[in-house]
Amino acid sequence: MNPQVTIKDIARLCNTSVSTVSRVLNGHPDVSEPLRARVLEAAEKAGYVANGSLRNKSKANTIAVIQRGEGNLFFPQLLQSLLPNIYKRQYSCLLYQIATDGDEIRAATTLVRKERLLGILFLGGRFNYTKEELAPLSVPFVCCTYTNAFGCLEAGDYSSVTIDDSQAARRAVHTLYKQGHRRIAALIHEEADHSIGELRYQGYKAALREHGLPLDTGLVECAHGYDLSRAYRAAERLIQRRRDFTALFAISDTMGLAAMKALQDAGLQVPADCSVMAIDGLEVSRYVTPTLMTLEQPVATLGEEAVRILVDRIEGRAGNRHLVVGTRLRAGASVRRVSPED
Amino acid sequence: MNPQVTIKDIARLCNTSVSTVSRVLNGHPDVSEPLRARVLEAAEKAGYVANGSLRNKSKANTIAVIQRGEGNLFFPQLLQSLLPNIYKRQYSCLLYQIATDGDEIRAATTLVRKERLLGILFLGGRFNYTKEELAPLSVPFVCCTYTNAFGCLEAGDYSSVTIDDSQAARRAVHTLYKQGHRRIAALIHEEADHSIGELRYQGYKAALREHGLPLDTGLVECAHGYDLSRAYRAAERLIQRRRDFTALFAISDTMGLAAMKALQDAGLQVPADCSVMAIDGLEVSRYVTPTLMTLEQPVATLGEEAVRILVDRIEGRAGNRHLVVGTRLRAGASVRRVSPED
Repeated sequence: MNPQVTIKDIARLCNTSVSTVSRVLNGHPDVSEPLRARVLEAAEKAGYVANGSLRNKSKANTIAVIQRGEGNLFFPQLLQSLLPNIYKRQYSCLLYQIATDGDEIRAATTLVRKERLLGILFLGGRFNYTKEELAPLSVPFVCCTYTNAFGCLEAGDYSSVTIDDSQAARRAVHTLYKQGHRRIAALIHEEADHSIGELRYQGYKAALREHGLPLDTGLVECAHGYDLSRAYRAAERLIQRRRDFTALFAISDTMGLAAMKALQDAGLQVPADCSVMAIDGLEVSRYVTPTLMTLEQPVATLGEEAVRILVDRIEGRAGNRHLVVGTRLRAGASVRRVSPED
Repeated sequence: MNPQVTIKDIARLCNTSVSTVSRVLNGHPDVSEPLRARVLEAAEKAGYVANGSLRNKSKANTIAVIQRGEGNLFFPQLLQSLLPNIYKRQYSCLLYQIATDGDEIRAATTLVRKERLLGILFLGGRFNYTKEELAPLSVPFVCCTYTNAFGCLEAGDYSSVTIDDSQAARRAVHTLYKQGHRRIAALIHEEADHSIGELRYQGYKAALREHGLPLDTGLVECAHGYDLSRAYRAAERLIQRRRDFTALFAISDTMGLAAMKALQDAGLQVPADCSVMAIDGLEVSRYVTPTLMTLEQPVATLGEEAVRILVDRIEGRAGNRHLVVGTRLRAGASVRRVSPED
């Protein structure tokens, strides 16, 4: 290493400007290839080492996306929105997937140590982090589609972009109620997973309370996962146990699709025998029969804002922020009007 | 830079072994955190620079996945199989998505320059690369789900893992033929895209020829993309133009799902009025009604072997290789038997 060599020296050696050398060394794309090669060669020969340690210099433009839950169809859709925003800001995306019951903070801590990341986008995670758990995370991060609802972090401790999950679930159940449904089953993840599932289940219970409907736990079934096959088996269990519901609220589109299939396989028509309503707004939910009625997450906004917040933090332009966005009702043929006496 | 400092010196400074220093500097995870920190600090203070240039040292464990076609539902499924294999071998995955009509070689060349990759997994791409185009790609790569069928590369010039697309299409059409279908429509990408679509279309035509059926181009519709919405619109155009087919072959599950929806929206029952058969084997295709009959790609094998071939190349254990795997017929309710006179 040769700390006395500066980018001014390299600029002089290459007969170019300091800002051009800086752009090359920072990996900006707006420099011609011959000039880039010349600058890099000169920097190398002169033994130039950027400020900061050897560790921080490498992978200096990498953001990691840590996706929790491989089988959840919503994440590829969100990822598709995140990626162009990451590229637009000249960052690269390292992708890491873990299981639904995996520990995203542990995965992140390992990655930060191994990969010298600049920041992390968490796609899904627990809602109850503590300050102590987050301490090893030395880089900015944004919780995408969740918050610290069950934890005790302060707003300044982390960033998030999300819908209001509890409110969305209330809205979904309210939508079914307005269509006359009174016995509304729920397909959830776990009753108390301290995660998105719990919040959406809370919204379901809140909606029932608001409309004076009793909570009938026999109408609630846990999928213990967010993938199609677990959700299908859970819906099967529910249908085997009970047939006295006219509507089913699924906490995600993936679960809603699986529920429709389980109902149809059990000889029940959707929506004639049972209406189905979900939250997320998958693209594929438009292409099943009947189309799944759902509350769409604004994926384009979530993707854009998550990257904006993270990059603003990385580049020191802003502190932690929280963005809560609304859902949009997507019409679908999976819900029908019934008379409340049905 | 201080080229005279060797890892032996650092090992001595840290009172540890050369192999431990090597493991730390190569980013292996099996070193305790305090020791890792001590080695890195010593290396930095001593001005250690690894063999090779400044450029090649950084991101020394990164593989890029370049996915061509954001809306193709098959790729998230393949990615889910690739990722654990990448992690298992101590590599990280940089993800880059481009449009279906994007230039994956150009994207790769830029990434190689910017990111110091060790290798590339291409998820989808053209089948007609030339040696000249590939010259700037200085790292090993594996074409996942395609080969150089329309180009003139030699086997030693690249690696690939794929099904036999033409053969799979023949098998799909043959399956429909055996069920009595004689007027079989096709939903394809482009007639001559020098890509997977063309190969599968060739298989469709070959199957017709083998069974003495005429090619009726009025029964062929191009989606100009692999996403649901383009495929749906293409199926709509086909249905508006013709109703005299008893079966439809879609070159991908994504297209098959969209076609079933378009048929149902046009008042046609699947399979009563029209059977639908596809290739790929998406998970979600099991959860639509009727379930889509399809030829499954062996995703687990493709993912495992693609990573194995790439890592063997990167680590110098083997040269370029080509793996062709078979498809498996997945039963589905979207195909019915008809009498050949139908």
